[in-house]
Formats: sequence, structure tokens, C-alpha cells
Amino acid sequence: MVGVTMAEAPVVHLVGSGPGDPELLTVKAWRLLQRADVVVHDRLVGEGVLDLLPPSCLRIDVGKKPGEHRFDQNSINALLAELAAPGRLVIRLKGGDPFVFGRGGEEALYLLRRGIQVEVVPGITAAFGCAAASRVPLTHRGVATGVRFVTGHCREGWWLDLDWKSLADPATTLVVYMGLAHIEQITSRLVEAGLDAGTPALAIENGTQENERSLRASLGDLAEATRDAGLRSPVLFIIGPVVEVLHNPAPVSLQVPDRHAAWIERVLHA
Amino acid sequence: MVGVTMAEAPVVHLVGSGPGDPELLTVKAWRLLQRADVVVHDRLVGEGVLDLLPPSCLRIDVGKKPGEHRFDQNSINALLAELAAPGRLVIRLKGGDPFVFGRGGEEALYLLRRGIQVEVVPGITAAFGCAAASRVPLTHRGVATGVRFVTGHCREGWWLDLDWKSLADPATTLVVYMGLAHIEQITSRLVEAGLDAGTPALAIENGTQENERSLRASLGDLAEATRDAGLRSPVLFIIGPVVEVLHNPAPVSLQVPDRHAAWIERVLHA
Repeated sequence: MVGVTMAEAPVVHLVGSGPGDPELLTVKAWRLLQRADVVVHDRLVGEGVLDLLPPSCLRIDVGKKPGEHRFDQNSINALLAELAAPGRLVIRLKGGDPFVFGRGGEEALYLLRRGIQVEVVPGITAAFGCAAASRVPLTHRGVATGVRFVTGHCREGWWLDLDWKSLADPATTLVVYMGLAHIEQITSRLVEAGLDAGTPALAIENGTQENERSLRASLGDLAEATRDAGLRSPVLFIIGPVVEVLHNPAPVSLQVPDRHAAWIERVLHA
Repeated sequence: MVGVTMAEAPVVHLVGSGPGDPELLTVKAWRLLQRADVVVHDRLVGEGVLDLLPPSCLRIDVGKKPGEHRFDQNSINALLAELAAPGRLVIRLKGGDPFVFGRGGEEALYLLRRGIQVEVVPGITAAFGCAAASRVPLTHRGVATGVRFVTGHCREGWWLDLDWKSLADPATTLVVYMGLAHIEQITSRLVEAGLDAGTPALAIENGTQENERSLRASLGDLAEATRDAGLRSPVLFIIGPVVEVLHNPAPVSLQVPDRHAAWIERVLHA
């Protein structure tokens, strides 16, 4: 299928690499990477993922800042357009999912406007990878009816311009991407806006990777705990009562109620 | 690794099957499914995913309602606890991601409280699968600074109890899961709460699967368009200006500015 498309028109595959663990790539991404001709990747792509590339593949790391040349977004867009060619498997590989806080939309728009096809392969975003690894259900009956992703990143020297009142909702799990630099401001604004300072929170550095580190703290203590632990980017924050739902659950008897036991017997011996 | 864990203690793997296309399973899920002993799955798991199971695998479909026996959540919890045994690979397979609107947290809590280990494998949730397939960036600079997932499902005969004012935020992409039954109420409440009736929206039935159908409409027309098209569950709604960002983009010249061209030359011939 891909081969047919490629023979007809230049195409760039915009692929999510997931949170870091190569086992959390999608099967589709895994297969594409193994026969890539060119991969343009950013800093958050795990080493284990890059190990899948064939030796012949040209790798271009646009996440680093190599001294004199600045890899700004315009340069990356132009590079992708230049690389795209019929019969060449060009992959733009991004950490997590390409369509959440990854500027994948900007790259896709640039390419589409120039007649270059874009195929998007979703990835496990950090929120889901970290939630699974840390056993935090992002929604949970009676605890959180929804979940919300925001970025804590803003231009240097600027204040974050978020709707704190709306974010301070105890029934919506809040996930903050790239929030490390502004975690003092984020936590104090949320408390000022009415979110309980005792709300459980989790900070995860290098989520799902071998060097993962995480800590739990109340919202009121989160900034200090993060600083004391010396967490370094990338860090994801999950804020809300869901953080404690599966943490040290109180034990109960394993015994199955009779009415279920009879039903299970029927299911297993149907 | 998995084998070692299983020999020591009973464990249930809570696995996300993704949005339907088996290629969108994670590699980890793909490998586990191919050697599963028992799979307890729900209705939203795609047929292509179930085709991966070995012939010897016991499959239990708890999504159907087989006449006299009602597969309520308590029965499913008890069934999983009953099935878990050292050396047996038991998979609880859920559509999308197990920790978003899938009640995976409840199942995990039930098992953990009874001393049964739970391993969670994340999945591509419908929002990401549909966004990639329909080329809708869920966040986009200058258009949407964040994204929010809610469920439009509630008990029959009840009104949805959502914070409409907070949801009516044009800068936050809104994704509604299971909203088909209440789409009239959802759209009219959002407009009443101040969200522009002209806000672009997308409805996707069976996202990422071969029988996928989708439609675009403004928020004000979304309920009628969905009804007219006869969309059937499962339907995901994406509401926000991001829906139009990559749709019919205005073409521009392919020519690369000189300053980028020189840089690209250097990168490619480094």
C-alpha cells in the first residue's frame, strides 16, 4: 500500500515514537522504521527506537543545537520538503504522538500546501505511557470524569497564559507537559484558583524508559519536591485524585460471591 | 521478563487494543496477544485484533449481552480474579487505552486489592487514532493550546452533568467519547455556554477501521448532520478550529528560501 502511494507522489510519514520504550511503538511505526531511507528526529525519541533503523538509513537529529546552525521550525519544514521524493521513505519521527504538543500540525501544513502527501501514524503520548507505567487511571468513576492536557511551556521570560480557574477542576485529571520550568507558578496558580493544595500529584521524569524516576506529592508540595529530587526535563505532571486510586489499595478477601462464582463456572465451561 | 513475573504471582495484563486497526496496537500488546492463554475482551475490540490470538486461546466476550446472563462490571471483575493463576497469561483487552473511559481503573483496583498483580499496556486511544487518520492536530500553535477528553455517556434518562462553561473554550480542543446519544444536548449546551456555533467539528464512526465514516459540520449543525448521515456507535466527536487546519490547505510554491537551501545542503552532505 505504502509503495503504491510513494511511487505516485512524494510523501512524508509523520510518525509518533511513543514515550520512549520501543515496545510502545505501534506495529505500523515499527515496520516503517525498519525500512526507512531517511529519518528526521527530535530530542525526545528514545535510543532504543533509533536502534531499529537500518544501517543504510540517513538519520538527521534536529533536536540538538549544533553550534552555528539553528534548527528552527522553518528550517525543519523546508528540510522535510526537500527530502520528500517519490520512492523514498522519509519519516519525521517525533516523541509521543505527532499531533499533541509536537508541532506536527505545522509540519503537515507546510508539506500539504506544497503538494507533498502526509501520512500520520499516531503514537502513545507521554500521558498514557506514564499513566500505564505508574498505574494511574486518567479517568475513574466517581473520581475523574475527564482528562485534560496542557503545556507548561512558554517563551522565556513570559508568564504562562492559562485559564487557571477552568483548570482548577477536581473532577478533571490535569496532565501538564513540559511544565518543569514553571512548576512553581503552575501549582501556586492552581491553588489560588481553588484547587485543594492536598490534591495528589505525580511527577515522572523519562517516563517508561529504563532511567524513569517519579515522585508523588500533594499539589501544595509538588514544586518543592520536584526541585528537591532534582528532576530534569522531560518531566510530565499528573494532577488529580486519580493519582492515589491504585496506590497502596486496601486488601480484601479474594473470595468470589456465590452468584458470580456460578456464572463464571458457566462461562468457563460453555 | 513476563514469564518470571507469572511464575511468582498471578497477574492480569490490562491491555489497550487501540482504535481498531491491528497495525495500531503497540508492539508489546501485539506480542502478548500472540501467546495469550485467556483473553477477556469487550465490544470495541476490532476483529483484526482478535485474529492475532492463537487457536488455543480461550476467548471470553464480555461486551455482548447473551440473553439471561448480564455481564455487569462486578461479574467481570470476579471473572478476572478467578482466571488469574501463576503461569497463565490472562489478558483483559479493552478498546483504545485501558485507562481512559474504559473502567480499567476499577478492574485494576479490584484485582490489586485481592493480591493479583496488574500489568498495564497502554493503547492508542480513539482521539489519537482518529486525529491521525483524519489529519486533525489536536493542539496547534495559535489555534489550540490544549486538548480535553470528556464522555457524553450517562445513565439512561439522566441529563449530562458537565461544566459547559468550562468546556466552551475555543482554545482547547474538545474530544467527546460516546457522545452520540446526547449530541443534541452537547452541542446546544456548548453554544449556550458561549462556544461559537460556527466552530468546526468532526464526527468519526468506527475510526481507523475499514468501515470508517466521518463528516465535518459546524458545531451548530453537528447534531443534525450526524442524524442525517445515520452515524452509529461508536462515534467520536472532535470540536474546535483544529478540525480545519489541515483541511484543503491553500497551495503555495514549493520553492525553498535560499537561506534554508544552503543549510539543507550542509546537513545532507555532512
